[in-house]
Amino acid sequence: MSRSPGRKQENHKISRELFVLTYGALVAQLCKDYEKDEDVNACLDRMGYSIGIRLIDDFLARSAVKKCRSYSETADIIAQVAFKMYLGVTPSVSCNSAAGNEFSLILDKNPLVDFVEELPAERASLCYCNLLCGVIRGALEMVHLAAEVTFLQDRLKGDAVTEIGITFLRKPEDRKHRR
Amino acid sequence: MSRSPGRKQENHKISRELFVLTYGALVAQLCKDYEKDEDVNACLDRMGYSIGIRLIDDFLARSAVKKCRSYSETADIIAQVAFKMYLGVTPSVSCNSAAGNEFSLILDKNPLVDFVEELPAERASLCYCNLLCGVIRGALEMVHLAAEVTFLQDRLKGDAVTEIGITFLRKPEDRKHRR
Repeated sequence: MSRSPGRKQENHKISRELFVLTYGALVAQLCKDYEKDEDVNACLDRMGYSIGIRLIDDFLARSAVKKCRSYSETADIIAQVAFKMYLGVTPSVSCNSAAGNEFSLILDKNPLVDFVEELPAERASLCYCNLLCGVIRGALEMVHLAAEVTFLQDRLKGDAVTEIGITFLRKPEDRKHRR
Repeated sequence: MSRSPGRKQENHKISRELFVLTYGALVAQLCKDYEKDEDVNACLDRMGYSIGIRLIDDFLARSAVKKCRSYSETADIIAQVAFKMYLGVTPSVSCNSAAGNEFSLILDKNPLVDFVEELPAERASLCYCNLLCGVIRGALEMVHLAAEVTFLQDRLKGDAVTEIGITFLRKPEDRKHRR
């Protein structure tokens, strides 16, 4: 006997829980592989970067977003279109510099940590969601925007919110802190 | 300036692409960690098992599925409710044994391999999606159903379809092949 379902296979949406648990397995594996939190963080950032440089095509194709005219607009698109599309949440955006090139994405609730209670004491420097920073950095680079992306606050570490900082780098000399 | 989006944060759906690419990063990391494909496969299965034993609560809560009265019904629920919910696809189900305890889930299209062209020659024995087998095995175990779950066919290896075999194990002596 064979039961074939109706054709409606092209569904771009999946349930978040499987993703969240799979991401947890990835972080756990890296914690086995690397003793130092900094190495885990760097590895997550690198992996995210590789994902971001591929995901950008999917994003541009499906979002139909036009070229942004300012860093502020770019930050809004990341929060309101990209985060919504890929993680189902919409962070608030705030601008942190008079120069207009530093922004924060502020998440009241981080969907990636649904099943994580808190970081173990010996992993206090772990940036659990650092993959996201790499994804943003990689995706921006593919649209010719160099940026530093790091966690500024993290509810997993006891902060009130989770805050991702994006600093757009305009000139080569701005890059001195870049990994 | 701070722009707060409207409240509609509780969304259980996310875009598949980020998951697929993150899963790819996980498999790539395991391929770095383990030389033998068999070790990567076993690790993916173990990770999946850990995910399955946690995911089952989410599944039972959100699907409102009642207790199944037969293996056949269980296989249908996995295909039509669980795969649909978590991966956005619905495999066909076929029963492979007169005893009624062996089933196949047949996927024309495997959403986890969207960005994978083919396996590298040196990774010919890799079961790229073996995490799924572990997830099914773990979830079934939590509802007191012991099962062996393995890939029988894989489009990544040149097969016409991707086929996951589920053998429900009824008696202790049935478990001899169990990992």
